[in-house]
Amino acid sequence: MVQSCPEASPAKWHLAHTTWFFETFVLREYLTGYQPCDPDFLWLFNSYYNDVSNQPEKKIRASFSRPGIDAVLAYRQHVDDAIAQLDQRGMSPQAAERIELGIHHEQQHQELLCYDIKHALWTNPLHPAYAEGGKFQSSASPPRWLDFTGGLTEIGHAGEGFAYDNESPRHTVFLQPFALASRAVTCAEYLAFMEGGGYTRPELWLSEGWDTVNAQQWNAPLYWRKLDGVWMLYTMRGIVPLSEMDATPVCHVSYFEADAYARWAGKRLPTEVEWEAAVAERVPAVPANANMLESGQLHPMAAPDAELDQVFGDVWEWTRSAYLGYPGYRAPAGALGEYNGKFMVNQMVLRGGSAVTPRSHIRSTYRNFFSPAARWQLAGLRLAQDTSQESGATQPSRHGGKISK
Amino acid sequence: MVQSCPEASPAKWHLAHTTWFFETFVLREYLTGYQPCDPDFLWLFNSYYNDVSNQPEKKIRASFSRPGIDAVLAYRQHVDDAIAQLDQRGMSPQAAERIELGIHHEQQHQELLCYDIKHALWTNPLHPAYAEGGKFQSSASPPRWLDFTGGLTEIGHAGEGFAYDNESPRHTVFLQPFALASRAVTCAEYLAFMEGGGYTRPELWLSEGWDTVNAQQWNAPLYWRKLDGVWMLYTMRGIVPLSEMDATPVCHVSYFEADAYARWAGKRLPTEVEWEAAVAERVPAVPANANMLESGQLHPMAAPDAELDQVFGDVWEWTRSAYLGYPGYRAPAGALGEYNGKFMVNQMVLRGGSAVTPRSHIRSTYRNFFSPAARWQLAGLRLAQDTSQESGATQPSRHGGKISK
Amino acid sequence: MVQSCPEASPAKWHLAHTTWFFETFVLREYLTGYQPCDPDFLWLFNSYYNDVSNQPEKKIRASFSRPGIDAVLAYRQHVDDAIAQLDQRGMSPQAAERIELGIHHEQQHQELLCYDIKHALWTNPLHPAYAEGGKFQSSASPPRWLDFTGGLTEIGHAGEGFAYDNESPRHTVFLQPFALASRAVTCAEYLAFMEGGGYTRPELWLSEGWDTVNAQQWNAPLYWRKLDGVWMLYTMRGIVPLSEMDATPVCHVSYFEADAYARWAGKRLPTEVEWEAAVAERVPAVPANANMLESGQLHPMAAPDAELDQVFGDVWEWTRSAYLGYPGYRAPAGALGEYNGKFMVNQMVLRGGSAVTPRSHIRSTYRNFFSPAARWQLAGLRLAQDTSQESGATQPSRHGGKISK
Amino acid sequence: MVQSCPEASPAKWHLAHTTWFFETFVLREYLTGYQPCDPDFLWLFNSYYNDVSNQPEKKIRASFSRPGIDAVLAYRQHVDDAIAQLDQRGMSPQAAERIELGIHHEQQHQELLCYDIKHALWTNPLHPAYAEGGKFQSSASPPRWLDFTGGLTEIGHAGEGFAYDNESPRHTVFLQPFALASRAVTCAEYLAFMEGGGYTRPELWLSEGWDTVNAQQWNAPLYWRKLDGVWMLYTMRGIVPLSEMDATPVCHVSYFEADAYARWAGKRLPTEVEWEAAVAERVPAVPANANMLESGQLHPMAAPDAELDQVFGDVWEWTRSAYLGYPGYRAPAGALGEYNGKFMVNQMVLRGGSAVTPRSHIRSTYRNFFSPAARWQLAGLRLAQDTSQESGATQPSRHGGKISK
Repeated sequence: MVQSCPEASPAKWHLAHTTWFFETFVLREYLTGYQPCDPDFLWLFNSYYNDVSNQPEKKIRASFSRPGIDAVLAYRQHVDDAIAQLDQRGMSPQAAERIELGIHHEQQHQELLCYDIKHALWTNPLHPAYAEGGKFQSSASPPRWLDFTGGLTEIGHAGEGFAYDNESPRHTVFLQPFALASRAVTCAEYLAFMEGGGYTRPELWLSEGWDTVNAQQWNAPLYWRKLDGVWMLYTMRGIVPLSEMDATPVCHVSYFEADAYARWAGKRLPTEVEWEAAVAERVPAVPANANMLESGQLHPMAAPDAELDQVFGDVWEWTRSAYLGYPGYRAPAGALGEYNGKFMVNQMVLRGGSAVTPRSHIRSTYRNFFSPAARWQLAGLRLAQDTSQESGATQPSRHGGKISK
Repeated sequence: MVQSCPEASPAKWHLAHTTWFFETFVLREYLTGYQPCDPDFLWLFNSYYNDVSNQPEKKIRASFSRPGIDAVLAYRQHVDDAIAQLDQRGMSPQAAERIELGIHHEQQHQELLCYDIKHALWTNPLHPAYAEGGKFQSSASPPRWLDFTGGLTEIGHAGEGFAYDNESPRHTVFLQPFALASRAVTCAEYLAFMEGGGYTRPELWLSEGWDTVNAQQWNAPLYWRKLDGVWMLYTMRGIVPLSEMDATPVCHVSYFEADAYARWAGKRLPTEVEWEAAVAERVPAVPANANMLESGQLHPMAAPDAELDQVFGDVWEWTRSAYLGYPGYRAPAGALGEYNGKFMVNQMVLRGGSAVTPRSHIRSTYRNFFSPAARWQLAGLRLAQDTSQESGATQPSRHGGKISK
Repeated sequence: MVQSCPEASPAKWHLAHTTWFFETFVLREYLTGYQPCDPDFLWLFNSYYNDVSNQPEKKIRASFSRPGIDAVLAYRQHVDDAIAQLDQRGMSPQAAERIELGIHHEQQHQELLCYDIKHALWTNPLHPAYAEGGKFQSSASPPRWLDFTGGLTEIGHAGEGFAYDNESPRHTVFLQPFALASRAVTCAEYLAFMEGGGYTRPELWLSEGWDTVNAQQWNAPLYWRKLDGVWMLYTMRGIVPLSEMDATPVCHVSYFEADAYARWAGKRLPTEVEWEAAVAERVPAVPANANMLESGQLHPMAAPDAELDQVFGDVWEWTRSAYLGYPGYRAPAGALGEYNGKFMVNQMVLRGGSAVTPRSHIRSTYRNFFSPAARWQLAGLRLAQDTSQESGATQPSRHGGKISK
Repeated sequence: MVQSCPEASPAKWHLAHTTWFFETFVLREYLTGYQPCDPDFLWLFNSYYNDVSNQPEKKIRASFSRPGIDAVLAYRQHVDDAIAQLDQRGMSPQAAERIELGIHHEQQHQELLCYDIKHALWTNPLHPAYAEGGKFQSSASPPRWLDFTGGLTEIGHAGEGFAYDNESPRHTVFLQPFALASRAVTCAEYLAFMEGGGYTRPELWLSEGWDTVNAQQWNAPLYWRKLDGVWMLYTMRGIVPLSEMDATPVCHVSYFEADAYARWAGKRLPTEVEWEAAVAERVPAVPANANMLESGQLHPMAAPDAELDQVFGDVWEWTRSAYLGYPGYRAPAGALGEYNGKFMVNQMVLRGGSAVTPRSHIRSTYRNFFSPAARWQLAGLRLAQDTSQESGATQPSRHGGKISK
């Protein structure tokens, strides 16, 4: 029942809403004679699809003491049974596509559920752990700079597999040459930024970021607290000293913090185009261990020492690209057009995938997006820099800064 | 787990906090060798006693997913067992007094729990009923005016029975003559005020009340909604047409609304001194049916037609008295001095008792208090008027207005 | 044009509004054939009289760049001329009464104007002084305790002179015996409270006061700032070290602070009834030097060492009485009934008069009132204590505390 | 002195701040022996340059009653004299560049001053006009669609003339084919959107836009009010019926409204790249009458019927591009790096120039930017559409929609 921040929803609601998605977009449209579980659920568990119905205000999701968990589980069973029935009867390709969309929708909520549980437990004054066990990576090699020549490049989804509408159309872009760091910034590196006055030097921040730092009194990422002079991190397995997590990618930073870190380091964040082009060139496939939750890990890990291979499955990586429609993008007609299209303002794109992203939900064209001030999601950063001749190429001598070659 | 408005708390919290009260003020002080159930509970379930410990912010009470309900029930058992042990060993009069205070404290929370459950269920978009059954009074006689001569009068607690500190010391006051209505204002009478433009005529309102009406867009008491042109009330047994509740005392009105109604009616609210003096003179004892929840009723009833006898057990009655210390009042030393004393500003006194006030919690000297804008409690009103010779005595001819003689 | 806090209004507005008052309540009603200066001014300069017209929101008073100051001065002249014309023609006693009311209304705004100018200048980052010169009292004798026996007492306005409606009717009250300090609390005494942890000890505060201290981050009265370890006060003549003002009555404290100080001192604030009864018994007349602004002073002065004689003309004194109607009080019909009556909730009464209260505006029955959190007005406090036999009479031995006998 | 919305500043402040800019960035750095007018002015009139000094909070700009207008004019004279002295002595190219920057800075404030005055006068309950006279265009031809083939294109500033840092570096982009409307959307066209339910159909809006519509209760552009059933617009020359402005470009719309209009029309907004490329191709020079304020006009005019020639000097045109740094962009070191760079988040780019943009401030590479909810600036929109073969080329038959061919 807990909803501990405006971004979050109660666990019961996630379950009911993902069920609602199948009922609304599959069963009501494709299963002849389908009897809804409860007519009120159509609007009660609608999140933001204005074309379907009005919705309860998000802030009262924590008031859903009724229907109780038993009723929600019965709702789920009712919908699962009806989907099975549809499957038995044989379904149209359109219906099958909707089921696939529903599964991807549910995967997103599985990830959000992890964020929300973590935040809810942390908000609880006792700070209980979600689970025991797991280990953090003990060391990280210095990042290397990988050079890319740029030029005419295609990005966006193409081919057979599933993708959201916002990954299309695939289109041509012109890229300047650039370099990308081989791994994400670690907690130890981020601590150096903090100790270098990161949160007290306005020149490192976007104006709105600096206002946020002051208004929210940020002095560290979310879940970091200094206790008796020692930085401690709240993780899914409870409170852990920062010293045990030095080599772990920093996460729970906002775009503002990611951007300030990059400026402090004398670098910048990559654009989403750079990120996708680099991954397409160097990372042939999503690795088997991308989803750490499945593998029993509960926190982002440091990358093994291979070329750009840890782009998936530790932390979402903030890019410096605003979330906008690709050239030629049109949101689909009807309610499903609201899935992605109507959020294309005041959001920044993240790429990659986190420790709690389901493995089959990860792909190189995937465009995640959050408000630049959001921190409860598993978001970190990777550095980039320009390498065009005018601004000076990536010669070793220029690589001093905060990242060793 | 639901906390649907800032005034409310989750049910689990009420249970834990009333347990905490016994642990903190009885067991820790009077049971030698007492082992606390959990050291964190000392601050975790503290409401507002700064002298005991810091407290979690009230707004995160809804985040207490842990400790779970099982742990809270075990806490209760632990404390109950220890109280039984103290009783077996024999206890000092001071300890017995503290237990009595703890019982009265718990009675207050029983009542608040009813308010909170009602509000939580109403906030739920499905508006589920708390229970079935019960009936509302079908008719109400016109109120009569009862005259009181005033003069030197004593009010406040005296004698043996239990009372809170704020009911003392008993002291002398000088009263002008006045008249008090024999019963509370009903829903039908309040509807006449609404239909007479009550919520749109600023001259009827205190300035701050009028600001509140506009800011909150009030146009009726809490829980009233007009559906398809018909006024409906949300009650503990679900949504009921106003027409079935004509004779029931209006409740869930703020002080501002009670005051505006009285001004519209050409009368005024009584002072708490008038109220107590009138009850002391005319109502010998709390009636057996004062607590309607115990008697299976779930909503305020209309008064039987007897002299002032329905002053207890339907709705708390707003008075025009600000909640302040009596002459000579001093808050007790230590944490228990925070029980009542520190709220003596910006609150108005209510007298009587509501349908969900435990019967043994009702007495004529009891001083309840709420902020003038609060409406989630069961609060209504009774009219009064001046009868001094200068301002015209209560002659029949002056009784036109909204109340028939 | 400056309006530096929600309580304040621009100087030009004060001038226009006091002019409006005469136009609306005197000229429009009593001067046959009166031609309003500008029909828009009727609503434009209305403050809060709903019965006259709607009003612009208070917060846009700072947007009144038009009409300009010349137009407002012309408005004043227009109204002055018309009043003179009414006077020449001869006027009814009712019209004369309205003029008297308008003068008192303007006196109130003269005082408010001083508060607003002070606040506006202080809000200005340069903190300019309002004027030069003046001296502060250099020393204050210890306060003495004056005993009063209580019993049946009459308070409220009676007789011929002008008084507001809220000072009536004169009525009988019954008072317990009490003692009142001979002078107001000084800055040096208040500093002792601060140094004794006054702003960090919750047990000294009303609950709402403590919330305000934390929300507003109060650690001293308004206009006090610690610069390089030294307390400095912003006054009408600029920034002055506290050390020069030791003997001056503390002012710009809220009710919450006054109440906390009294609790810290082991005393309490007087009720307004006690205050008025004491002054009626011991202070025969308002002294000639009550208004310090007229006498060239710009700040509250310490009291000369005479019995209760400095009750007027330094700071308004918070009482522990909520601002409510006296027994039998009825607001007058029509717009002028809004003058005082509609503010009778969530305000506390202050008695006396400040350094910027016009002398002819000061009287012993006067009831000033402000919200308990307000601090921009010149408000301080005087201590009182109970002296009934039960609670121990004012024997010398009990007089330790913070006030020496 | 008026500051009628958070975006605005008082006129006196604009004058002082533009003076401050010359003093800070020219005189203090390049005029040997320069004596500042007042040392406090360095921080007092700083807007947002953290590298120079702290700044007063923006919201207290309306409290700058001191220094008075005479002091500010003297400040201006002092700085003008010193600039003349620097000029006489001969200055370095760096100093001359700074003066040029200061002039462009002042031009921006000249435009903002017009916005602020308009808003201040409108906020005034009397809605006074800024000036008399002027005429609105009486008719507008239907817009034509101009086709562009896209491909590799260069945008950004190059060459000799002045430009801000954010217009560089000039760089190559790859453009899909597109079409651009020959003129901006008019008030009459926008009214059709409103009458077609524009403000009540969520499917037309970005999610954050729809939230803003509801929170702000928008039902028309800023300055539009329906009086007695007739739409009226507040303009610099007072309140004018919409019917007189049918052919005038709509302005004072937010990005959200511009975007919703385009969606309703079945089109989209152009990107800033498309806009700049189109203008570079078709508009050889800024026309002589670009600045309508100079030419005695006070409001955007309808476009004469020429190809894309009215891209300058009526309204700024919202693009669908977020305001971000160009590839290779680095903010300059020091305080002047704060001029543009730190605002690169949560802002949308506008192109063109408005009726109150100084003519020499207009150029095709200019990147203006505002928050997507801002409306007090003179912002309108021009439609675009895709013309790639996949999405259907701009055949006449597809041009129905809301824009006639």
